[in-house]
Amino acid sequence: MMKKAASLFIASFILCSPIQASLHIENKAAKPLSKNLIVLIGDGMGPAQVTAARLYSKTVSGTESLHLDDYYVGQTSTFSERMGVDGSIVSGMITDSSAAGTALATGRKTYNSAVSVSNEEVAMPYASVIEAAEAKGKATGIVTTARITHATPAAFASHVRNRKNEAAIASQLLESGVDVLLGGGAAYFTGKILPDFEAKGYSVVKDRAGLQTLTAKHDKVLGLFSRSHFDYAIDRDSSSPSLAALAGKAIELLSAKPEGFVIMIEGGRIDHAAHANDLPTMVKEVLDFDAAVKTAMDFAKKDGSTSVVVTADHETGGLSLGRDNRYELNIDLWNRQKQSSQALNAALEQARTPEEIRKFVQTNTTITDLSDEEARFILKGDGTNYEREGAYNAVISKRLLVGWSGHGHSGVDVGVWAYGPIAELVKGKIDNTDIAKAGATTIGTDLDAVTAGLQAKYWYPKFKTMPDRSVVYPAKALAAKLGASADWDETSGTVRIAKGGTTILANLKDGSVTLNGRAAAYTVHVEKGTLYLSLDAFNELSGLNMTWDPLSERLVLQAG
Amino acid sequence: MMKKAASLFIASFILCSPIQASLHIENKAAKPLSKNLIVLIGDGMGPAQVTAARLYSKTVSGTESLHLDDYYVGQTSTFSERMGVDGSIVSGMITDSSAAGTALATGRKTYNSAVSVSNEEVAMPYASVIEAAEAKGKATGIVTTARITHATPAAFASHVRNRKNEAAIASQLLESGVDVLLGGGAAYFTGKILPDFEAKGYSVVKDRAGLQTLTAKHDKVLGLFSRSHFDYAIDRDSSSPSLAALAGKAIELLSAKPEGFVIMIEGGRIDHAAHANDLPTMVKEVLDFDAAVKTAMDFAKKDGSTSVVVTADHETGGLSLGRDNRYELNIDLWNRQKQSSQALNAALEQARTPEEIRKFVQTNTTITDLSDEEARFILKGDGTNYEREGAYNAVISKRLLVGWSGHGHSGVDVGVWAYGPIAELVKGKIDNTDIAKAGATTIGTDLDAVTAGLQAKYWYPKFKTMPDRSVVYPAKALAAKLGASADWDETSGTVRIAKGGTTILANLKDGSVTLNGRAAAYTVHVEKGTLYLSLDAFNELSGLNMTWDPLSERLVLQAG
Repeated sequence: MMKKAASLFIASFILCSPIQASLHIENKAAKPLSKNLIVLIGDGMGPAQVTAARLYSKTVSGTESLHLDDYYVGQTSTFSERMGVDGSIVSGMITDSSAAGTALATGRKTYNSAVSVSNEEVAMPYASVIEAAEAKGKATGIVTTARITHATPAAFASHVRNRKNEAAIASQLLESGVDVLLGGGAAYFTGKILPDFEAKGYSVVKDRAGLQTLTAKHDKVLGLFSRSHFDYAIDRDSSSPSLAALAGKAIELLSAKPEGFVIMIEGGRIDHAAHANDLPTMVKEVLDFDAAVKTAMDFAKKDGSTSVVVTADHETGGLSLGRDNRYELNIDLWNRQKQSSQALNAALEQARTPEEIRKFVQTNTTITDLSDEEARFILKGDGTNYEREGAYNAVISKRLLVGWSGHGHSGVDVGVWAYGPIAELVKGKIDNTDIAKAGATTIGTDLDAVTAGLQAKYWYPKFKTMPDRSVVYPAKALAAKLGASADWDETSGTVRIAKGGTTILANLKDGSVTLNGRAAAYTVHVEKGTLYLSLDAFNELSGLNMTWDPLSERLVLQAG
Repeated sequence: MMKKAASLFIASFILCSPIQASLHIENKAAKPLSKNLIVLIGDGMGPAQVTAARLYSKTVSGTESLHLDDYYVGQTSTFSERMGVDGSIVSGMITDSSAAGTALATGRKTYNSAVSVSNEEVAMPYASVIEAAEAKGKATGIVTTARITHATPAAFASHVRNRKNEAAIASQLLESGVDVLLGGGAAYFTGKILPDFEAKGYSVVKDRAGLQTLTAKHDKVLGLFSRSHFDYAIDRDSSSPSLAALAGKAIELLSAKPEGFVIMIEGGRIDHAAHANDLPTMVKEVLDFDAAVKTAMDFAKKDGSTSVVVTADHETGGLSLGRDNRYELNIDLWNRQKQSSQALNAALEQARTPEEIRKFVQTNTTITDLSDEEARFILKGDGTNYEREGAYNAVISKRLLVGWSGHGHSGVDVGVWAYGPIAELVKGKIDNTDIAKAGATTIGTDLDAVTAGLQAKYWYPKFKTMPDRSVVYPAKALAAKLGASADWDETSGTVRIAKGGTTILANLKDGSVTLNGRAAAYTVHVEKGTLYLSLDAFNELSGLNMTWDPLSERLVLQAG
């Protein structure tokens, strides 16, 4: 009886959940257009990043075009949603990777930092195209050169209010059912979690040799090739596979499944090199990604029932190809850098004199004309958290003849490339949410239906942890989600929360609380004018039996 | 007889003229796809310029998309050709407007500064899609908010080695046969040239009222609405028409002609505002251009036999939307600027104290928090030829939260938008030369054939003007173009130039020259190891009767 009431309630909630207007694409479950879907994301790969890689290839190896170039179909806006963060309002004009990942994975806008949950005080999970594919019985995969728990991959198979909660993301990946997980981030898979993966049938590999041993009989695979992100392509040793090698193996494993597959493949470190303003390293990351695009396209062409869509989540660094009124790029010099600025940084940090700085710069780039002022600037750092590495790249970028507007993201539209039936759906000027909707439509699934299933299980409220480690939740917002009324009586200083025959009165003056007129033991907390209550109050009010998942920081409405 | 020999010779030259490999499109005269063609160029309108205008519209007027957005089909590379300039080699990685205009107009790459001529010591003219349309009997038009003699419009109807030769461009426009010419640049139409236009049947107008009087009975129109470029949209008074008004009138006049028409419409000042790093002014230029795109698209949809293609020649300013590690744009402030920095500059130039600077900044932008250091920086100027205006925009841009990499162009790919049959030809990743080839194919003309006709008339050699004002030409390069041999004899210090039975010997030691063994009166000049000879030598050698056009700095092989 209780259970039935809860289900009814949840159904009524779902009808009230915020539905965003579709910009271009109406996603409904219909006849699939392709059996398989490959989504490739170049993290931070804005227009200038792509042009830079092409001009580099043309100059250094005489290649006129990137593999990508053959598949260009459009561009997408990248903005996220406005939200208050730490007291200041962020307009959402410029997205981070988690809000953009959410849009690309689930077709929904959200706030920066959110991983596939809505922009609400009590956030709701949004289903990704990977989760929708699983619901349809397809095999699924996630591949990245970043940590597999990082924002972009996370958005495809986990749900958290804050992208920094990577331990929760790792644990949700364990429950996700994704068949092939290949990336970095082994640091988040310590303790019991690796045995748990193995218990679920995952083969665990950790280097290129391990990757090569995998065959179609390996049903489920977790590949963790580095503690954190992969080394940059420019620094990578032979034990580390390329993104194309990862992509190729993942596609090989997944395509053996009869039901078809959906995979997300991320070039995760274009972004990082661009954040650091390290152009030569960034270019090689774009080329590493471009090779993976070729792998995907080659498969799709041979397969005949695969759609491929490629995009970026945003631009990083405010890169411009040309600077200081010169109509020129110094691509010969781009090609002379031996290692990434990140790899060089340990040496830079040791340096004590301008002469030492000059030596490191010369060794890494062949540049010999550093001024004393420039060497001292590198010693001093650029005033950001990139410190000496940032200053080094600022000095070098002047000679490479490229500009950066800082170490953050920018808001420019990014490219969309596609092959197969999905191409018709994503061509032209689209919004990043259209990528997910087009993907779901391509494989014949309905994201909203799978989202409804998730929202019947988990909610992600804001919360406060009390000194006694108990947790309280914002009363008004959670009451509203539960269909209860919440009214404030100025005279008595009381909040009245009511649903059906149940009434909770919380007196903000003395902290007392009653349930239907009798004193109740709920925890009451008031902060900045907002009333917080413990979970037992909301369970009483709703007739639900919600529990708190402290790792994923979510309310569990139904056991998984 | 002489004439026939010349024609034969010219034909043989044409076979040897450099033909570039087509990247995407093979342009051949075939069945037209559209009767009319409208080419719109946003000068300097890179990806960030477009996104900036969209985000501005969304924030300020709630408009979700630009008119442009409905027609996005691809992107184009913009690079030009490598060439030595003033002793230094320019790689061509970053184009200027004349090389880009040449690519967009003629389908050919050339060097920065060239206006629709080849990248050779003896440059050859390349025919534009406007010239090809005329050859087919179509009506033609050129519309711009820049000077009508500026690089981009110039590339569609004139040919000069150096874009700075705007007097020659004006005189070539007179000969061009283009029916409707609307733009700025009245300063280049002084003296006899306006009466000459009127004698050719042009109605001359100079303001919005004049524009409105024009009807289909005005066969030919020259509209010159400002001495130089138009005022910026943000500064424009009511006497000055918008680009949409110019475009609408030009299309109205041209569409009355039964043979169809080709028109180029340029938003010429997006580039200038971006060069100055004046974002609010730039955004309003993009919107002025976007309104003209709507005018063109509305006509095309109603007409049913019109193709429209929209692109940019390059990005300007290295604009990035976001800076200094902030994930934010201050669009409210973008909207508060009252006049362009150029219009404000007269006041800035008068200022003597930081307080005066502060007052001007506050009046124009509402910004009140200028630091003393910032005010002093504006007083001092930014060290470029933008001086105080550049420094002003640097200070303001920090608050607008946008970045610039300098006052020059950048190399990023730019967008392509299209409507009608041409859309199929320009979709995906293309090269800027493909725009012209696609345009010519769309109206069923062959650019190469029209180019051959031009090259039979005019050549554009490098040249030197002697103290006596006579002109000499590089002997080896011009001899080669004429099919003559040119050999250097070290021992005698003599250059031997020969063709058929004619031999010219030029002794570089004593400056003597002989024709078939007898002393000749040709002017001999040697500079940096290069031999120059006067035109009579080359006429003797070739049997041609070439003359020198000193205004357009070209050899005339056949009278116009």
